[in-house]
Amino acid sequence: MKTLEEISPMLEERIPSSFKFEVLHTSKKSSARVGRIHTPHGIIDTPNFVVVGTNGTLKAVDNAMVNELGVQLMFCNTYHLMLQPGTEVVRKAGGLHKFINRPFPIITDSGGFQVFSLAYGSVASELKGKGTKKTDGGVLKITEEGVLFRSYRDGAKILLTPETSIQAQKDLGADIIIPFDELPPYHIEKSKLIDSLHRTHRWEKRSLMTHLENPNGQAMYAVIHGGIDLELRKLSIATLGALPFDGFAIGGSVGKTKPEMMELLTYTMEHLPKDRPNHLLGIGDLWSIDQCVPLGFDTFDSSYPTKSARHGIAFTKRGPVNVTKGIYKEDFSPICKECTCPTCKNFSLAYVHHLMKAHEAPGMTLTSIHNIHYMVELMKSYREKILQNEL
Amino acid sequence: MKTLEEISPMLEERIPSSFKFEVLHTSKKSSARVGRIHTPHGIIDTPNFVVVGTNGTLKAVDNAMVNELGVQLMFCNTYHLMLQPGTEVVRKAGGLHKFINRPFPIITDSGGFQVFSLAYGSVASELKGKGTKKTDGGVLKITEEGVLFRSYRDGAKILLTPETSIQAQKDLGADIIIPFDELPPYHIEKSKLIDSLHRTHRWEKRSLMTHLENPNGQAMYAVIHGGIDLELRKLSIATLGALPFDGFAIGGSVGKTKPEMMELLTYTMEHLPKDRPNHLLGIGDLWSIDQCVPLGFDTFDSSYPTKSARHGIAFTKRGPVNVTKGIYKEDFSPICKECTCPTCKNFSLAYVHHLMKAHEAPGMTLTSIHNIHYMVELMKSYREKILQNEL
Repeated sequence: MKTLEEISPMLEERIPSSFKFEVLHTSKKSSARVGRIHTPHGIIDTPNFVVVGTNGTLKAVDNAMVNELGVQLMFCNTYHLMLQPGTEVVRKAGGLHKFINRPFPIITDSGGFQVFSLAYGSVASELKGKGTKKTDGGVLKITEEGVLFRSYRDGAKILLTPETSIQAQKDLGADIIIPFDELPPYHIEKSKLIDSLHRTHRWEKRSLMTHLENPNGQAMYAVIHGGIDLELRKLSIATLGALPFDGFAIGGSVGKTKPEMMELLTYTMEHLPKDRPNHLLGIGDLWSIDQCVPLGFDTFDSSYPTKSARHGIAFTKRGPVNVTKGIYKEDFSPICKECTCPTCKNFSLAYVHHLMKAHEAPGMTLTSIHNIHYMVELMKSYREKILQNEL
Repeated sequence: MKTLEEISPMLEERIPSSFKFEVLHTSKKSSARVGRIHTPHGIIDTPNFVVVGTNGTLKAVDNAMVNELGVQLMFCNTYHLMLQPGTEVVRKAGGLHKFINRPFPIITDSGGFQVFSLAYGSVASELKGKGTKKTDGGVLKITEEGVLFRSYRDGAKILLTPETSIQAQKDLGADIIIPFDELPPYHIEKSKLIDSLHRTHRWEKRSLMTHLENPNGQAMYAVIHGGIDLELRKLSIATLGALPFDGFAIGGSVGKTKPEMMELLTYTMEHLPKDRPNHLLGIGDLWSIDQCVPLGFDTFDSSYPTKSARHGIAFTKRGPVNVTKGIYKEDFSPICKECTCPTCKNFSLAYVHHLMKAHEAPGMTLTSIHNIHYMVELMKSYREKILQNEL
């Protein structure tokens, strides 16, 4: 493999990537900004919400509908797609966009998050008091090279390294890809967190080098780590910011409580270079988006709107509506009177309530459609407010 | 309540129902016929397939899509809708068409089938060797008046009689409704079958009288019973055919084997009046439709195409395709190259295969959409063949 120093001159001659980021306006009231990310599959207006389609689909809505709803970016998980159908299959299909029928931008992660969630349990369940996992959860060995784990599907041994993760993401062909990183647990000794951070930096550099050997129109965002240690976050930004990444993602544990998270993210955003786009990994609940847009965040991915929908929670301007509640049994108006989504245009709250009570899957589909449309409109309204310096 | 004799003169003055049946052509090769059923919510071209939307929805496809697919008739179950959300709620919503957003024809059953399935077990499971049920399955009492049973949802006692069933179906407001009938098991002594048949005839007559007090544009099909006894079937046709029903449905057990079923249905169809439309209840697999269209059947309802789809069976002209099979992992063409359904226009077989393997619900949705479209096209082709006297 070539070193980054050898690759750097090649960057000059690199085919002009269709990836480009422009900041159109920064609010006079906060660090909130409106931008535009150009990708080979079109524009992502920022700030924006990113739907999670782990296996190349949302859980209750097919991609033909997602395309219609105007969702500009979908997050797919490399780990899942490696195990099923295999990234090789997706490559043969002509890439993920073609395979899943999504002509719009896609971002994939490195697979590291899932592999380390298997090893340690997710940070979220750790913080819900479930502790870190005592079992190895399928992970056989973690070395400088990468992680050896066992597929939960067929028991096959899989070695995930920066190089194999990037190769997998080349097969998938997403517009934005993510370097291989380690996700340490929230409760970790500082010395171990430092070791993990340095290894992650080495892994990310290897990922970047592998990527730049064949950029293929894709953009790569560095993942900023350092857990809840502000100095380590700053170190991570300095280290990774010096490399030719196309943008930044904020990863790792960002805190146990909302105030802790906000303190960490505020600090991180103050130090993050402003010339490249950024993404907040796995956080996209309504409160967090509202707090984080003024910090200058560009994109947020979360399964929260679709997962909520499957539990009957519909987002509205008057707050969340639990459609399963008895009070909606005879509410024959739409979930939102002013809403223009296919659900509200065609069906009443009482009907969606009925479907959920009767355990009929279209209830989840219709509520998911409504929530996705809500997120698309919500992000549009954030952009308008920023342009008016109202945020 | 008025007697039928008192009601009959009222029929003359009855607001001209928008229900009308016309036979356009009967094949020169068989009894197959092409017709048109006019209803308050539009035309049903016959022969046709009727989708089953038990709770006012298909299991994996929302009604906005069902409307787009050109499905002309949907079957909904009064029993289920009585328990959830309650037919009262549907009435307040403005009727079933409005409640479920279906501007096209709907047929509802009487609830009898489900109540007696609770009591005896379904005929299908009986014939699969599971025997008749020994427990009462929620049924508390069967009398001349009707059936008292306990709701599986909240334990409430519910009395289902010809009058309450019809009232429920008035609340729902389907275009075609069904009189209250008893569903005796396949294995039954002849004397008990005769008793059941006479009681069913009395119940159906009471149902018709209740209906005719307030026809409200709805049509009512008699349900022909008599189990597998040819003479009793003939008696049932003679008895019910003399009453002013708008059409006929074939109910009850029609046999244990396919040859037994075909013998019974052939005999029944030979005796059934030709001037009114007929419907084969609960049978709509591809083989049975192919055998029964030449007998002169007009409509068939079955959950078979949608249930098959949820198990990964896609219907094609080259036979059923099990999309979950490994051989389709890299089949990047649509399920059917010539198919114009939304699934085949947008997605590959390999992708649908992947969704099913990954246990993602949109896999069931996409396969269901394909099968519904297949049934719509299949019935169209039967009608064309009949018009050409090819069938």
